[in-house]
Amino acid sequence: MPPTSTGQQEPATDHQDGAENGRAKQRANEAQEPKEKIEGKVYKDYLKLDSLLNNVDMMSFRHGNPVHDEHLFIITHQTYELWFRQIIWELDSVRAILNVPIVSEEDMLTILQRMNRTASIWKTAVEQFAILETMTPLDFMEFRCYLAPGSGFQSLQFRIIENKMGQKMENRVNANSIIESFRDEDSQRQLRQSLEEPSLCDLLIKWLERTPGLEEKGFNFPARYTEAVNKYLANERENMEMETDPEKRKGLEAEVKKQRDTFASVLDEKSYNEKIRLKERRLSYKAFMGALMVNCYSETPRFHLPQQLLTILMDIDSLVTKWRYNHVILVQRMLGSKTGTGGTSGYMYLRSTVSDRYKVFLDLFNVSSFIIPRDYIPELTIEMQSALHSTRLSGTTLGYRMHRFSEPSLKPLSF
Amino acid sequence: MPPTSTGQQEPATDHQDGAENGRAKQRANEAQEPKEKIEGKVYKDYLKLDSLLNNVDMMSFRHGNPVHDEHLFIITHQTYELWFRQIIWELDSVRAILNVPIVSEEDMLTILQRMNRTASIWKTAVEQFAILETMTPLDFMEFRCYLAPGSGFQSLQFRIIENKMGQKMENRVNANSIIESFRDEDSQRQLRQSLEEPSLCDLLIKWLERTPGLEEKGFNFPARYTEAVNKYLANERENMEMETDPEKRKGLEAEVKKQRDTFASVLDEKSYNEKIRLKERRLSYKAFMGALMVNCYSETPRFHLPQQLLTILMDIDSLVTKWRYNHVILVQRMLGSKTGTGGTSGYMYLRSTVSDRYKVFLDLFNVSSFIIPRDYIPELTIEMQSALHSTRLSGTTLGYRMHRFSEPSLKPLSF
Amino acid sequence: MPPTSTGQQEPATDHQDGAENGRAKQRANEAQEPKEKIEGKVYKDYLKLDSLLNNVDMMSFRHGNPVHDEHLFIITHQTYELWFRQIIWELDSVRAILNVPIVSEEDMLTILQRMNRTASIWKTAVEQFAILETMTPLDFMEFRCYLAPGSGFQSLQFRIIENKMGQKMENRVNANSIIESFRDEDSQRQLRQSLEEPSLCDLLIKWLERTPGLEEKGFNFPARYTEAVNKYLANERENMEMETDPEKRKGLEAEVKKQRDTFASVLDEKSYNEKIRLKERRLSYKAFMGALMVNCYSETPRFHLPQQLLTILMDIDSLVTKWRYNHVILVQRMLGSKTGTGGTSGYMYLRSTVSDRYKVFLDLFNVSSFIIPRDYIPELTIEMQSALHSTRLSGTTLGYRMHRFSEPSLKPLSF
Amino acid sequence: MPPTSTGQQEPATDHQDGAENGRAKQRANEAQEPKEKIEGKVYKDYLKLDSLLNNVDMMSFRHGNPVHDEHLFIITHQTYELWFRQIIWELDSVRAILNVPIVSEEDMLTILQRMNRTASIWKTAVEQFAILETMTPLDFMEFRCYLAPGSGFQSLQFRIIENKMGQKMENRVNANSIIESFRDEDSQRQLRQSLEEPSLCDLLIKWLERTPGLEEKGFNFPARYTEAVNKYLANERENMEMETDPEKRKGLEAEVKKQRDTFASVLDEKSYNEKIRLKERRLSYKAFMGALMVNCYSETPRFHLPQQLLTILMDIDSLVTKWRYNHVILVQRMLGSKTGTGGTSGYMYLRSTVSDRYKVFLDLFNVSSFIIPRDYIPELTIEMQSALHSTRLSGTTLGYRMHRFSEPSLKPLSF
Repeated sequence: MPPTSTGQQEPATDHQDGAENGRAKQRANEAQEPKEKIEGKVYKDYLKLDSLLNNVDMMSFRHGNPVHDEHLFIITHQTYELWFRQIIWELDSVRAILNVPIVSEEDMLTILQRMNRTASIWKTAVEQFAILETMTPLDFMEFRCYLAPGSGFQSLQFRIIENKMGQKMENRVNANSIIESFRDEDSQRQLRQSLEEPSLCDLLIKWLERTPGLEEKGFNFPARYTEAVNKYLANERENMEMETDPEKRKGLEAEVKKQRDTFASVLDEKSYNEKIRLKERRLSYKAFMGALMVNCYSETPRFHLPQQLLTILMDIDSLVTKWRYNHVILVQRMLGSKTGTGGTSGYMYLRSTVSDRYKVFLDLFNVSSFIIPRDYIPELTIEMQSALHSTRLSGTTLGYRMHRFSEPSLKPLSF
Repeated sequence: MPPTSTGQQEPATDHQDGAENGRAKQRANEAQEPKEKIEGKVYKDYLKLDSLLNNVDMMSFRHGNPVHDEHLFIITHQTYELWFRQIIWELDSVRAILNVPIVSEEDMLTILQRMNRTASIWKTAVEQFAILETMTPLDFMEFRCYLAPGSGFQSLQFRIIENKMGQKMENRVNANSIIESFRDEDSQRQLRQSLEEPSLCDLLIKWLERTPGLEEKGFNFPARYTEAVNKYLANERENMEMETDPEKRKGLEAEVKKQRDTFASVLDEKSYNEKIRLKERRLSYKAFMGALMVNCYSETPRFHLPQQLLTILMDIDSLVTKWRYNHVILVQRMLGSKTGTGGTSGYMYLRSTVSDRYKVFLDLFNVSSFIIPRDYIPELTIEMQSALHSTRLSGTTLGYRMHRFSEPSLKPLSF
Repeated sequence: MPPTSTGQQEPATDHQDGAENGRAKQRANEAQEPKEKIEGKVYKDYLKLDSLLNNVDMMSFRHGNPVHDEHLFIITHQTYELWFRQIIWELDSVRAILNVPIVSEEDMLTILQRMNRTASIWKTAVEQFAILETMTPLDFMEFRCYLAPGSGFQSLQFRIIENKMGQKMENRVNANSIIESFRDEDSQRQLRQSLEEPSLCDLLIKWLERTPGLEEKGFNFPARYTEAVNKYLANERENMEMETDPEKRKGLEAEVKKQRDTFASVLDEKSYNEKIRLKERRLSYKAFMGALMVNCYSETPRFHLPQQLLTILMDIDSLVTKWRYNHVILVQRMLGSKTGTGGTSGYMYLRSTVSDRYKVFLDLFNVSSFIIPRDYIPELTIEMQSALHSTRLSGTTLGYRMHRFSEPSLKPLSF
Repeated sequence: MPPTSTGQQEPATDHQDGAENGRAKQRANEAQEPKEKIEGKVYKDYLKLDSLLNNVDMMSFRHGNPVHDEHLFIITHQTYELWFRQIIWELDSVRAILNVPIVSEEDMLTILQRMNRTASIWKTAVEQFAILETMTPLDFMEFRCYLAPGSGFQSLQFRIIENKMGQKMENRVNANSIIESFRDEDSQRQLRQSLEEPSLCDLLIKWLERTPGLEEKGFNFPARYTEAVNKYLANERENMEMETDPEKRKGLEAEVKKQRDTFASVLDEKSYNEKIRLKERRLSYKAFMGALMVNCYSETPRFHLPQQLLTILMDIDSLVTKWRYNHVILVQRMLGSKTGTGGTSGYMYLRSTVSDRYKVFLDLFNVSSFIIPRDYIPELTIEMQSALHSTRLSGTTLGYRMHRFSEPSLKPLSF
């Protein structure tokens, strides 16, 4: 089996079949294989504890100056790396499932479960900084001298996670030194590969572009939304004009103008594309419209799961930012403005990564700027409604509704 | 170097010198050793990531039925085992520092730092159950069949932690099966050894017995405390007798009687020892008096650190109980009342461990029953006060107090 | 407007219309009402801060013995009561939405959002105990004497929450003293009313009984499930009989027997009802079958939301148990085994509430005992599948699936 | 009684006596007052629940368009305001205790307990954002229109906390609009008063300036530290010069130069004062030296409590920053870049407050830049050591050390 991105051998994964949930396939495989007797294992052999727990090699001991806290330093980083491995496992799986022409609702459930898990891991990763904070700067200084040229900057798995999420190289503060910091060929190869594969963000964009209802010849959400926004802005202007107090009116005028400018940037595809060019937006116009549509109709059952996906992606973005922030705080406390062990600029570099440019899904946060009140959101056509919505049918007096064959079908949509 | 309790090779630790903080010694060692050039390592070599991350061997893949979530199951358990290793590292160090005739205040600071760290690890361990809870019973059932005869019951490090904390075999629900569950000689040897060494609880008892102020010929805290309790109870009785409302009086009478009975169990050494015989108490009489004294005077600077130690030990007891509880909930959700993978009785067994009998430091919680209001706590004698207390000296009008050579010395106490 | 359950005036709520999402209705109401000018408010008037923040009346001050920490004691309890008010608000709304013959998927989304919110509040409530734990037993003892006859036992809102969740009086350790502990008529009236209204558990049972697929003349899940279990048990028996090692075989025999007994209790309605009579089960047979079915098919989109509801209810049950446990620990640390301020037995009483009998949704946890491996779960019939499932239709080559009028309709089910 | 800073009536507090722990005084007061019979209260009267819970006045109801989630919005803000009241209570108490010429170790214990409590409250405040995040942008938009001109920007208590901590007006992004945003005289008065009183940061500076060991004619830490740094830098330079690899040497040279520049800014009082003038430092030179000294000797018992105080202040700074960050994220999700309800610029304004300039105790974080390895830290003189340190005395072979009258006294230092 070929080595995988994390450097260790691992079996081919079930999700390489993409949208196929893989389970049926697995069972088929199982049937074909001759069932040889595979011995069960006791706990410590199953988890390979003899090997796992045997990787603490304290430099301070090697230098004849044993420092108690170096043990903590190593173990903490090792737990992070184990969790990073798990995050990559989930990301690979989710990207494979998304990387198909159609994503069914079952697949969406699987994706959501795995992204929620990823968020849960990040939450633990954020909070477990408290453990390392029990070390003092004086403790750290005792073994810090032995750590060079090592640096957390060299965590390959962390870089790979960033890349697989969709962190753009061009948004990085020091893109060049990242690739350079990995000297061995294998690491560099894995890093490059993670940049070449479609990232979660790339796949999300394609998926959002397929949002049902965007088609010009169908529901044409962009057109209806434009109309709705114009109605809303006109109403705001009317309210403004009815204001008699001159000072308040001045405030409202500014507000109305600001809103008009804000909305202009999404109502017109060209203006929007200009923002992409200026790197102020990353989602394509169509994808952005998809995200907007999902937000507008998130309370209809069919748009609920998509909305959950957008939400969990923002959650993860926030959690990663919090992780970076906690990391910054820790480094600031341990080192102040001293140079980092690997020669990195330490605090100042890390501080610069706690910013919006390191948020992969920043555009999703921005969608909120363009949501209009429920009353203005264009009503779904009967056709769309029947597709997306569980309408209240007559004749559903029993405990639950029976389907009837002659009715317009209300297929669950998958997109 | 000999294999240690956790099965992996590791260097002799600094704390084997006991109370010696070890740092001076370390520097001496360093001086003696010829300083050969030791090469620094990059991040992945320092953390031995190639070895660390290469321990995921999914049984479902071996059986030709790959199950995505088994990866999570393995990684989660591995992070637990890494943290357990760290907890053992801290426990060993703290026990060595405590295992001396005198524990200085500097040593107490080190102990507190390390026990706080241990609590912080347990906190993460409690909370990271949320990650494993993202797996469903159906997911688990897909690979559960491959896990037998493995069982979390077989975590050697967890047993060793329990033993080193001071979990008594006789308090265990199924003491016999625990030793049996480890089939290899090395594990059994480590387990036995962890039972033979003085546990944290044993050492705590000895340390509490040395609490300054307990001596009969000195401050004689037990005698003064007895007197104080009697005054307090007499006052309560007086208040009761002044009550004219018959119903209220009845309530107060019962209350006074109950208090009298409660206090009787600690005022008389024989009654107390009877409770030890009945396994209702674990601390010796003298140690219990020490704990009581620390609680009574915790607001004097010299008793502050000892009080912090008692508090953090209760915190850890509570956290371990919460860990057990979360474990129980998880098993209940995954398995209901099904038999555990290693043939254990699963939920019912685990449920039985979430009880007070599994609290090592239960007696410390009980101390609160015997605390009396501040006004009744016996005043420190001038001698004790000068030893324990920063009294407000005359002539300390400057920004801080200067010491004067002719005064009674106010040495920091170490015990 | 009449006073509500929490003693304060509050407006009629939107959810009193039950399943009607209420929004359309609201807008209609709005249209009818004359729109008089309502003045906006600044922050402090909107939140009524002058009134809200003016409710700290420290008894220790009244007694001329001001104790700093009583302020914390009051504020902490007040924040709990505010959150309890919010929990009641959510519970009332969710019960109203559930208390109808049919619950649509939109309604289910609303229910889930509000129960998730409730869980989130409980999470904060569990964790904020850490704040009160910064008070020491000595601090508490300074003002505790002034608190009688008050007691947390008298929190009306907490009792109402228990009742509205469905905590049965007969499962309470001291049901009588609970009603007695509220002396004023209004509190007693509210308490009784909360017992008379259908609880969340009552409504859940009715809802589960309506699970589509339970009908004898339709999919008849109970029959199919029985068949599946028998096949599964037969297979287990076969495996057992193939085992040649006598000792292992003995273990497997015991295991097979135990499984047979376990399953017997649900396969036969009479045996199950006997368990209800013995108070070992609370859900009706039909409701239990519904819960089992939801679990079995939770990976189909239509059963996903129902499964999420069952999960969040278990989460809340666990969180309330953790809240009780943290409360117990706090009381144990503050009081030891002293009598509680309201004359309650303090620690021992509270300890008794941290048990399975105080779990309202205990049966949902038990469902896991009866889940069988995915391979044995009865396949959905084409009819059920088309109702519940997004099947992979031919002709769905575009980015998402178009509905066709002539097909069997795939209506989203609401139940 | 006069209204206090938070607008509500409250009793004079015990800490207005400053360093006097107040307890003795309280008892005296108690003795003097005639003990009239004060009736105990039941729970709901003690907590004034009828008044407390009666402050929910939903604007959406007033406008005839009831929105379920407005209830959550109000309750959440109310719990924040209750906690803010508690934080002010603790801050006032701690500032009073610090605002004296000498702070004893007992007082330091009280300060630490209360600042730890404050940190614990902030932790809950940070985490309970999760509750409000269960509201969607669409939900919020339904009642947001009714909220103007209210804005969280108008939280008086939050501003008062910032001021009492020591947030400088000149560091605020929009200092002017803050005072303007409170229209009523009383709020403005309170705000001004909070700016005039000595802040926690002011008092910390004075306290640090009194650090024992700074005196020129005594231990003269600054001089010894300067010497130590020079020795350390000389050693670093030597190591650099021994490096033969030209590239590595170049790196080391840059590193040495950078260190030299860094240290220059604290070794010379004038350079340091220049940094104050440029607003890059806030602590006075002497206070900074005090903080540095506390850090260097934090492992001696006497400097342990001071170090704990510095640490908890940094913790609080970090927590407040996290609170701001969570607030930003919430606003970003709810509003995008829309204008805030009170006319504030919403997201962009809030984003600007999540920066180092809003950290009151930033200089404490910077101290780490100037810590040198343990081996270089100047040894305490015998005189200092006997004052600060529990030296290992001969003749202390018993379980704990007895004081002897003829020895140099080892008084606990208070500063």
